[in-house]
Formats: sequence, C-alpha cells, structure tokens
Amino acid sequence: MDSAVVLAAARREGFGPIALSFRYGQRHEAELAAAAAVAVAAGVTRHEVVSFDLAQFGGSALTDPSIAVPKHERAQDIGAGIPATYVPARNTIFLSFALALAETSGAGAIFIGVNAQDREGYPDCRPEYLAAFGRMAALATAGEGPVIRAPLSGMAKAAIIRRGLDLGVDFSLTRSCYEDGEYPCSRCDACLLRAEGFATVGVPDPAVSR
Amino acid sequence: MDSAVVLAAARREGFGPIALSFRYGQRHEAELAAAAAVAVAAGVTRHEVVSFDLAQFGGSALTDPSIAVPKHERAQDIGAGIPATYVPARNTIFLSFALALAETSGAGAIFIGVNAQDREGYPDCRPEYLAAFGRMAALATAGEGPVIRAPLSGMAKAAIIRRGLDLGVDFSLTRSCYEDGEYPCSRCDACLLRAEGFATVGVPDPAVSR
Repeated sequence: MDSAVVLAAARREGFGPIALSFRYGQRHEAELAAAAAVAVAAGVTRHEVVSFDLAQFGGSALTDPSIAVPKHERAQDIGAGIPATYVPARNTIFLSFALALAETSGAGAIFIGVNAQDREGYPDCRPEYLAAFGRMAALATAGEGPVIRAPLSGMAKAAIIRRGLDLGVDFSLTRSCYEDGEYPCSRCDACLLRAEGFATVGVPDPAVSR
Repeated sequence: MDSAVVLAAARREGFGPIALSFRYGQRHEAELAAAAAVAVAAGVTRHEVVSFDLAQFGGSALTDPSIAVPKHERAQDIGAGIPATYVPARNTIFLSFALALAETSGAGAIFIGVNAQDREGYPDCRPEYLAAFGRMAALATAGEGPVIRAPLSGMAKAAIIRRGLDLGVDFSLTRSCYEDGEYPCSRCDACLLRAEGFATVGVPDPAVSR
C-alpha cells in the first residue's frame, strides 16, 4: 500500500520510475504478484525483482516459519519496541540494491515507502537512518549518488490512504498482510494498521471488501 | 587473497569469524570454490554464501559478458579512474548482507578486505565510504551496530602478501583473476596487481607456480 502511494507520488512529480521488488524469503510472497499489478496499473515499463534468501540468516517472523507472526485483536494492542516481524538490515539491503540500480540506470532519486508508524518499531525506517544512508550512498558510487526520498515519512496510515485516493491509487491491487494465506489474516500488525487507516478515513478497504 | 589475509588477521585477534561470500553473477565464480577452501583451511565453522544476480542490472565487466575485462601487459599500464570492472554499489550490497548476518548472529564486527590499491579506482573502497557505512549501520539496526574493520585499508599488495605469509595464509588456495577460465588469465588488473605484489616480495605465487 505504501509503495503504491509512493509510486503514484513519484509519477505525479514527473518521474518515470523503475519499480524494484524483492523476493527475500518472506512468507508473504503474495505481495510480489500485488506489486506487479500495481506497477502495471501505474504504467511502469520496467519492474525488477531481485531474489535472495534472508531466511538463511533467520531472526525474523517474516522469514522464519518457526517464529509466529504476532496477532492482536485491535491495532491499539500492538506493542511498543521492535516487533518479531523486524527483518535485520532489510531496508539497508533493499536500498543497497536500489543504489546499484540507480547507478546503472542513471536514476537521480530512490523512493521508499517508510512511514510514521513503521518508524516507531523499525530502526531502519527512521528519518535519521535514511539521512545516514544518503550520506553513505553519496560516497559509495561513481557520481554524486541518488537522493533518498521518503515522502510518507511523517504520515500514518489514514493520511497515506487519503493521499493515495487523491492520486488515484487502486488499493484493491495492494497487499499488506504478513501471512501467506490466500486472504489477509486481519490480525497481524500490517492488517490491523491498514484496517485502522481505512476506518479512520471512513471508506471500505477494496482489497478486503471485494 | 585479501579476504584470506583479513580472515587470518581476524582469527589472530581472537575472533571466531563467520565467512560470508556472494554468488552475484560474477563471471569469475571460481572464486567461490577458492573461498570455501580458504574458509576450511582457516578453521571457519560457518560459511554463508548469499546468491543474487547483479547481472540483471548490468553496468560492469564483471557481470556483463558483453563488456570485456580490461587487459594490460604490465601493472603500471593499469589506468587511473574507475575501471570497467567496477560493479555499482557492490560493496554496499555485500556490507548490507554482512550487517544482517551480524545482527542475527550477534557479531560485533564486520571485516572487509579493501586495500590501498582498490581505493584508487573504486569509490566504495575508500576509508571515508567505510566510515559513512559504519555510521549508517549504527542507525540501521536494533543494537549499536557492528564495527566495520578494514585492516588492509592502507596496504598495497606486497604488504598484504607479507602480512599473509606472517599469518600462515596458504595463498595457493586463493584466486584473484576476473576471468572465468580454469587458470588465471595473467593480464587482468587483478592478476597483474597480484603478480606485481609477489614480485615485490620476492616469492613465487603458489597459485600460479603449481
């Protein structure tokens, strides 16, 4: 959902983005089919999917089948601190591949959909982390390095949904659930925050209601 | 060769390192068999090989078969500037996976074999780049983040070879050539710098002479 809104925002600014997704051993690999549909709907002409296996390192409920994805009744029951769904260094790995793609393609910016609710629990979603990545990227590459853009950084889910609706994002194509079931589980953090967002905005979630 | 010396240096300091190698679409994939032999010889009990395909992004002679690996007669003919063998953001990607492995395994340090000759041509081998990566890593992870160690950073090949010999490294197990042939090509930058190093030290290269 966040990626779809960021993609639409980049296009609205006049960018012709390359979409970049990752098959990293996540149990919710269904998000990749959703990402492909979102990219096509946004008119993206190049969508790269990079594959590797973070499950070999373990340490996260998203990649280790023996660690359960935390479930709650309500969004307000989601605890503070770093959740079991944190994947060590995942955004650093994602952004590093984006940096390689930016350099080989000549892209001047990397857009990432981190948001205000992510950063409460995930260290690699904080603005100071992204700023440090940008400083490193400027020294890592042959040119000046791309600008790291996180246009949702200060936004919670409801604001992201409103922004997406303004931009014409078709949320029925998006997928948030951390589980690998055919339908969203409705109890993981991703499902609960998404549902809370749509409830706050006062519109039905088209990916659930259809 | 550099990785083998760094591994031996880390062990000499008392570390029990995890070895980490990458199958990234490099034409000289033979280096992976060499890495496995080096790790076994050093008594490493865990050697992770992460696989992904940087060839899909292109842009380097090391991953794109249509770009020739530069060849020269002598090491002093190697030009200045960024060579065709530069792989965009490669060290950033490598270090990002190392960061993930460090966090899941509890490792307090990441060792990397960049050296004084690399940094003349590769932006992601410079000390200021490594320092910026370290600052980013400290913000990226749940803990303080590992220390990035580059003990060969100020050293040219001859000094690295001397250090390796002091540490008991068996250089016959190592592989430097950028080509995929059964034997080193002897004309790529990696072969030439290696030969120059052994010539300076005044010992034969056991990987060539056997």
